[in-house]
Amino acid sequence: MSAPVRLVPLGGLGEIGLNALVIEAGDERILVDCGLMFAQDHHPGVDYLIPDLSYLGSPGRLRAVLLTHGHEDHIGGLPHLLRRHRVPVYGTAMTLGLVRERLAEHAPTTTSLLQSVAPGAWVEAGPFRAQFIRITHSTAGACALGIEVHGRRIVHTGDFKLDPTPVDAMPTDEAALARWGDGGVDLLCCDSTNAHRPGPTPSERLVGEALHRLLPDVEGRAWVATFASNVHRVQQVIEASRAVGRRVTLLGRAMVRTTRIARSLGHLRPAPGDLVPEPRSRGMPRDSLTVVLTGSQAEPGSALWRVTRGLEPHHRILPGDHVFLSSRLIPGNERAIYRQIDRCIRLGARVHYEEVSEIHVSGHASAADARRVVELTRPRCVLPVHGELRHLQALVDRARGLGYPPHRCFRAENGVVVRLDDQGIRPDGTVPTGRLYVEAGTEGDVADGALADRRRLGRAGLVLAVAAVDPAGALVWGPRVELRGVVPDDQASREAREAEEELARVVRREAPEAPSAEDWETLFTVALRRHFRRRGNRRPVVVATVAEV
Amino acid sequence: MSAPVRLVPLGGLGEIGLNALVIEAGDERILVDCGLMFAQDHHPGVDYLIPDLSYLGSPGRLRAVLLTHGHEDHIGGLPHLLRRHRVPVYGTAMTLGLVRERLAEHAPTTTSLLQSVAPGAWVEAGPFRAQFIRITHSTAGACALGIEVHGRRIVHTGDFKLDPTPVDAMPTDEAALARWGDGGVDLLCCDSTNAHRPGPTPSERLVGEALHRLLPDVEGRAWVATFASNVHRVQQVIEASRAVGRRVTLLGRAMVRTTRIARSLGHLRPAPGDLVPEPRSRGMPRDSLTVVLTGSQAEPGSALWRVTRGLEPHHRILPGDHVFLSSRLIPGNERAIYRQIDRCIRLGARVHYEEVSEIHVSGHASAADARRVVELTRPRCVLPVHGELRHLQALVDRARGLGYPPHRCFRAENGVVVRLDDQGIRPDGTVPTGRLYVEAGTEGDVADGALADRRRLGRAGLVLAVAAVDPAGALVWGPRVELRGVVPDDQASREAREAEEELARVVRREAPEAPSAEDWETLFTVALRRHFRRRGNRRPVVVATVAEV
Repeated sequence: MSAPVRLVPLGGLGEIGLNALVIEAGDERILVDCGLMFAQDHHPGVDYLIPDLSYLGSPGRLRAVLLTHGHEDHIGGLPHLLRRHRVPVYGTAMTLGLVRERLAEHAPTTTSLLQSVAPGAWVEAGPFRAQFIRITHSTAGACALGIEVHGRRIVHTGDFKLDPTPVDAMPTDEAALARWGDGGVDLLCCDSTNAHRPGPTPSERLVGEALHRLLPDVEGRAWVATFASNVHRVQQVIEASRAVGRRVTLLGRAMVRTTRIARSLGHLRPAPGDLVPEPRSRGMPRDSLTVVLTGSQAEPGSALWRVTRGLEPHHRILPGDHVFLSSRLIPGNERAIYRQIDRCIRLGARVHYEEVSEIHVSGHASAADARRVVELTRPRCVLPVHGELRHLQALVDRARGLGYPPHRCFRAENGVVVRLDDQGIRPDGTVPTGRLYVEAGTEGDVADGALADRRRLGRAGLVLAVAAVDPAGALVWGPRVELRGVVPDDQASREAREAEEELARVVRREAPEAPSAEDWETLFTVALRRHFRRRGNRRPVVVATVAEV
Repeated sequence: MSAPVRLVPLGGLGEIGLNALVIEAGDERILVDCGLMFAQDHHPGVDYLIPDLSYLGSPGRLRAVLLTHGHEDHIGGLPHLLRRHRVPVYGTAMTLGLVRERLAEHAPTTTSLLQSVAPGAWVEAGPFRAQFIRITHSTAGACALGIEVHGRRIVHTGDFKLDPTPVDAMPTDEAALARWGDGGVDLLCCDSTNAHRPGPTPSERLVGEALHRLLPDVEGRAWVATFASNVHRVQQVIEASRAVGRRVTLLGRAMVRTTRIARSLGHLRPAPGDLVPEPRSRGMPRDSLTVVLTGSQAEPGSALWRVTRGLEPHHRILPGDHVFLSSRLIPGNERAIYRQIDRCIRLGARVHYEEVSEIHVSGHASAADARRVVELTRPRCVLPVHGELRHLQALVDRARGLGYPPHRCFRAENGVVVRLDDQGIRPDGTVPTGRLYVEAGTEGDVADGALADRRRLGRAGLVLAVAAVDPAGALVWGPRVELRGVVPDDQASREAREAEEELARVVRREAPEAPSAEDWETLFTVALRRHFRRRGNRRPVVVATVAEV
């Protein structure tokens, strides 16, 4: 009988993004991935969110970070982590290539912590031993992890699908997974993102075939927007373009950077002449150029966003062009993406997107992929990871169908400690988790309280009252009222005057004797809230400040 | 040769919602539909939007409003219109039933303008004659319109699909459409919403079949969330529930109201005992009740929203329940819907939604439906209506394939005047269009300027500086700084003190001679903007007010 192991998900379970899973044996810990989450509508002004890692406590007990792949939701929180915990970070060369750029920007002294691991190789960290196992996903250099500690054996898939015909001819190392199965696997942590979808996830090749079919019809320029990290997608665009005599140029900082890294590591293999530097592409005939660019999610400031707004003078969409949005419409981005599609159409382009053309396939395991990994590794227990609640639940449902009872498979959310012992897995209490809001490019944090204020201000606007009183509490100036975002601009000054008249009435009627400045502020605040609630049920934020002079 | 007719889309072309199409012959006008649009994320605090109808000018030239069906995006702007233009409003009994409730609430003196029209019947309005032609859609009582004026003949489909097996056994009146074709149709205004989808749109019956298949597996309560207006869907839930021995109760104001109207008009035909009033449903065994409720879009305050938050004490989701989201995930609502799904799962329910079960079909014509209507009416010209730009363009593309050249079919957006004459159709200038923002239940408008202020406040928060100066311009109090929504609450007072210290430095360094209160306000505003930009690149709204005492 060996000692129990505890898994502590600090992010990524019950929400998309922020992936960070602590694995503990006794006092020793490793962390699998450390990601970020992009801000959503209810995070106004925030750039992105990172997991609150305070559970890790003071430096010392964490032995290493193991990275499964280089997507932002798996690496974006590293600068924040490494500034406090200076531990080795293991990942494949491609993963670390992406990490390095990020660290160089945000935490330059930490790049020396990165240690490259070849797929198939093992690393050691305290009592932990881990093998990196090549697995296919929508970026290059992705790995599953086989982890041994105190005699317990855990396989973590990372993000994956089982692509039988990967673009880079580097398939999942199923032999290694099967060897782990032969040696006994106590727990499989399995990507659940697409577990609700039946069958296998289609091969990335499908997109290449669609591009080969569609590109010959493009009269003008071909524009292909996709995630920079989707190296295989870029490779296929290059090959399909070559087949119709088009050269390819890259737009967007992330696209140029990621492609450079992928190329240096052999993940991207353009033939001589396939790629043309952007400045040299400017004068090229429209029918001989494909532009691969960022902005498939209509992210403000991204390359396609700029192009559709005429902000790239050398790269304009014209009639006869085709725009391919070769990516998923991520929930929350749909309206912005649709507006961007409409902009392209208005400029005269034909637009291909997931809804109308087969120009995207997912990088995540559908039910048949998950089942195959279970068959290879034959785990005693299964823990769904990486997904919102309905995804985790879908994988639990699939596992039940494969014969896993609740003590061998259940749904854990962030903060739920999962204890793995001889009996199986079970919830073993909770730990505090949370998110930190990062904005304006700094790592400063914005707390929920400030966001609530912003949401209120953003919903109904602001009413401001200012006055001055003498030391006896008598009004000597004001109250003056100002409005921001409450009513249309042409009515704002009239509404402000009426509010001032209301305050004057309140002063005559309700003023206490010898009030302090604070008494006045309370009186004004209450009166203005009432006044605006009565006028069309408006509920602006009211701020009153009274000077004592 | 007959006189030209002009079509002026004031809403609905190039955006979803706000449908309002003016048809003009000489000085005479009618309006087809008058809808609203639900507010989106970039309309903070706004409840909904209605078309700016100022193009209609002073009352007098508008002869009538013809309503194709009772969805909010076709009727929601009527109160606003009718308060200014007291003209007859024609529609079927079901459509007017929905309109009447809305008018009674917002413009009670206008309900006398409603005039019910039976499908197949004609109405006259000035030089216009129009026939209401029964057509299938995702609500009851929907009609296409055949409109004659000055010898020109226009068919407007309204929103439709061609359902071969409608739930209420009231199919599209294809014979009437064919008779219009026989008599010659100059222009077909055709719903384009689903024109990008190949084939026909499936029959509503498909949903009934799915419910018959899925309901027997439900151990606890069945919850079916759908749009209240989808009367046929409610009918099918009732029938599928009856088949498994479940009675049905209704939750949500709109659900109860719409169902009452539909029932009184024979569009909904429950058998005796099928429906149980909500108070009597409370004690019923969980496996003998289906709850049909609003909230499929996770609208705040809707029935399902309340249930998932425990705000309906008599109606709780428990393990063993199944929740059916029998509706589309409308773009922009996805994240909220997914969060609501996750809430249901956390409460122990199994959730069926469009992505995992066949429990929704669209009410809009796919390519084959549109083609069939073209074949029936054989129009000289086709104008795509009702859709965002990519939908309109998709129908233009389909029409090209059917042999319609640009002078017989093109893509018009809101405000583009479409002239119909003997040569075909062509753009004939533009007219101003726009939207009015309605909020807080009143019909008061919030202009774009105020929304821009709200967005800025909502993104970055507010910094407020207050001071008092004597008549010579010398500071006698302050400046005091307050922050709202800029930094976390626990840092706000420290940040405010530091901003005050910065202002004190600015006062010493930069204060002009004998400044006015306004000079001080400018100085403080500029200094605070600079200060916060330097601190983490924050860009709050800055307001400075200086009292002169």
